[in-house]
Amino acid sequence: FDSKLPSTGTTIFTQMSELAAKHQAINLSQGFPDFDGPSELLDRVNHYIQQGANQYAPMTGVPSLRQAIQSKLKRCYDFQANVDSDITVTSGATEAIFATISAFVRPGDEVIVFDPAYDSYDPAIRLNGGTPVHIALLPPTFAINWQTVANAITDNTKAIIVNSPHNPTGTVFSANDLDALYEIAEQHDLLVLSDEVYEHIVFEWADHQSVLRHKELAKRSVVVSSFGKTYHTTGWKIGYCVAPAPLMTEIRKVHQYLTFSTSTPMQLALADFLSTHPEHDEVLPSFYQQKRDFFNKAMGESCFTFTPSPGTYFQLMDYSAIKDIPDTEFALWLIEAAGVAAIPISVFYQTPPEDMRLVRFCFAKQASTLSAAAQNLITL
Amino acid sequence: FDSKLPSTGTTIFTQMSELAAKHQAINLSQGFPDFDGPSELLDRVNHYIQQGANQYAPMTGVPSLRQAIQSKLKRCYDFQANVDSDITVTSGATEAIFATISAFVRPGDEVIVFDPAYDSYDPAIRLNGGTPVHIALLPPTFAINWQTVANAITDNTKAIIVNSPHNPTGTVFSANDLDALYEIAEQHDLLVLSDEVYEHIVFEWADHQSVLRHKELAKRSVVVSSFGKTYHTTGWKIGYCVAPAPLMTEIRKVHQYLTFSTSTPMQLALADFLSTHPEHDEVLPSFYQQKRDFFNKAMGESCFTFTPSPGTYFQLMDYSAIKDIPDTEFALWLIEAAGVAAIPISVFYQTPPEDMRLVRFCFAKQASTLSAAAQNLITL
Ligand SMILES: CSCCC(=O)C(=O)O
Ligand SMILES: CSCCC(=O)C(=O)O
Repeated sequence: FDSKLPSTGTTIFTQMSELAAKHQAINLSQGFPDFDGPSELLDRVNHYIQQGANQYAPMTGVPSLRQAIQSKLKRCYDFQANVDSDITVTSGATEAIFATISAFVRPGDEVIVFDPAYDSYDPAIRLNGGTPVHIALLPPTFAINWQTVANAITDNTKAIIVNSPHNPTGTVFSANDLDALYEIAEQHDLLVLSDEVYEHIVFEWADHQSVLRHKELAKRSVVVSSFGKTYHTTGWKIGYCVAPAPLMTEIRKVHQYLTFSTSTPMQLALADFLSTHPEHDEVLPSFYQQKRDFFNKAMGESCFTFTPSPGTYFQLMDYSAIKDIPDTEFALWLIEAAGVAAIPISVFYQTPPEDMRLVRFCFAKQASTLSAAAQNLITL
Repeated sequence: FDSKLPSTGTTIFTQMSELAAKHQAINLSQGFPDFDGPSELLDRVNHYIQQGANQYAPMTGVPSLRQAIQSKLKRCYDFQANVDSDITVTSGATEAIFATISAFVRPGDEVIVFDPAYDSYDPAIRLNGGTPVHIALLPPTFAINWQTVANAITDNTKAIIVNSPHNPTGTVFSANDLDALYEIAEQHDLLVLSDEVYEHIVFEWADHQSVLRHKELAKRSVVVSSFGKTYHTTGWKIGYCVAPAPLMTEIRKVHQYLTFSTSTPMQLALADFLSTHPEHDEVLPSFYQQKRDFFNKAMGESCFTFTPSPGTYFQLMDYSAIKDIPDTEFALWLIEAAGVAAIPISVFYQTPPEDMRLVRFCFAKQASTLSAAAQNLITL
């Protein structure tokens, strides 16, 4: 039989994490912390399990969690969401992205995607018969040229997917980006899917330019976030999306048949923690900035070159002074030569720029992990 | 904008559970236990959370859980699955069903579905551009006429979805059904999606006729199951699917972009329990048969008529002696008149048979719940 996704292989995150395990390398590839979330959050899951909260959650998410999300949106973005109609808890941000694309993309539709991009967007669009229109962002700034975006719009353009803070480059939107996005989306009646899973990891005290800050833009947008990234619990697989009721109605039609609902006791635990510890996400920028600076300082002695990442828990580094080879080749070599796993960047492009010499390191790690990795990397 | 699922509303399970809560009715509608799973299983989640197993599980599932599933398949069905290539853990059986349909159904494909059917099959097929071909099964036996199935096959038929033990009717496959299914699937080169989430709930000591028992049929089949149903933890949302490697490769391409992975500590807890307590699923038939018989005995004094359910934790009952009205109307009336929520059956048909007077009661409940419900129902 013919594959519906003939060019799709195993995601790079699985590949690199498996290779890291096999070679007992320090794993700075797939993005996840090697430390735990707050103990009050962790302990709360068992509280609810022992209370018997082990049956289906409501399809839209447990009410207390949607309530806590609503308060957080108000606090962080001065955004007023309706608890019943505008918020849905999903099995990770990945499910929210897939459900949104499935709900709105039809055969013939074009969807604008910026490369490098999280690798789920493209296959999700294709599976729904749509055509991803890739716009490449280029080093060193990876900035979006909105005129290029405007030129890429056709009568078939249905949606645009944006991601700030941006994985894998760490770049963040400015208020100007939001305005430009709004103008284009409004003019061409586009749906905006805004992947904001690193919303709370923005450095130098810049503000996260959430689409929800722009009230007019928010009216045509689906904003996706992830508790895994914010609470150091990527393995719990709980995320959510926010959208105006008419859009959310369609997303829920898909969500209810895609996973129906998500771990009840973990949702309840997150609801308690989120509503009682607003300071957690407020200190996250300084928490991760310290890790970034710690890693970057140690890497200052290496032959890698870089500018500090403005957001996310990822740092791009240029390795051209070490070896002038393609990045996937370099990443494989790095595991053997330095015992460190990283993510090559070209895999996130439909058409990778020639001679790009960048790999991505995840610094969501304990200081001991980061210094052990740097120690190995500076010998190259 | 146009909805991709214009005729899809909120799933009946959500509707009825919400109505039950609103009217403080006894909820025998949506299928879930009102008692807990084994305490050794429940306690184990916290063990792993405290150990720090809170980051992404491998995309295919944690190895110990896939190992435990493999042993179980051998023990129950004498089926030899490859741990690495043939088993994938999913965010509930619902995700496994959606991923399978997304991986194989294309625009123009027809998929055979038996009505009444679990309500996710049809929209999942439609979202992928396929056409569900509904074959209605009729009371009292709801048996499949395989000649009717053969007649419904066209050049576009791609797959057939079967479900035994069957939700909502409780009917179970015979060995003859497996043979007939095999003949048709083989002759027309069909993919078989076998929803076996109630595999361990088959009464009168009959054997569950898993597709995995039929080695030739299994070669073209995806078999889906659910830990929620077997371990009384529907809210953990962990299921799995089993398929030959070439099929599983395609399913995983979708799964990795649909949810990527599922709760790590809960997978590890299930792995421990499953591998050390094979007796749990062995006693499940008698455990649920007792509940069925208890409920049915109490309902013997009511005006409902029924034959005992052969499998699942659902019991159909005919209410025509009480009120001669359509079943959705009756279910709404029942909440008010008796304070008991049930599921109407016609909603599971594309074209409901006229004058069907059946509702589904879930008997996965404590004896006190079942007798309270029966006490109300016998007054009608
Ligand atoms: C779902 S695994 C991918 C984790 C991640 O977002 C990343 O490493 O970029
Ligand atoms: C996912 S909610 C539906 C539960 C169920 O399978 C049923 O009640 O039939």
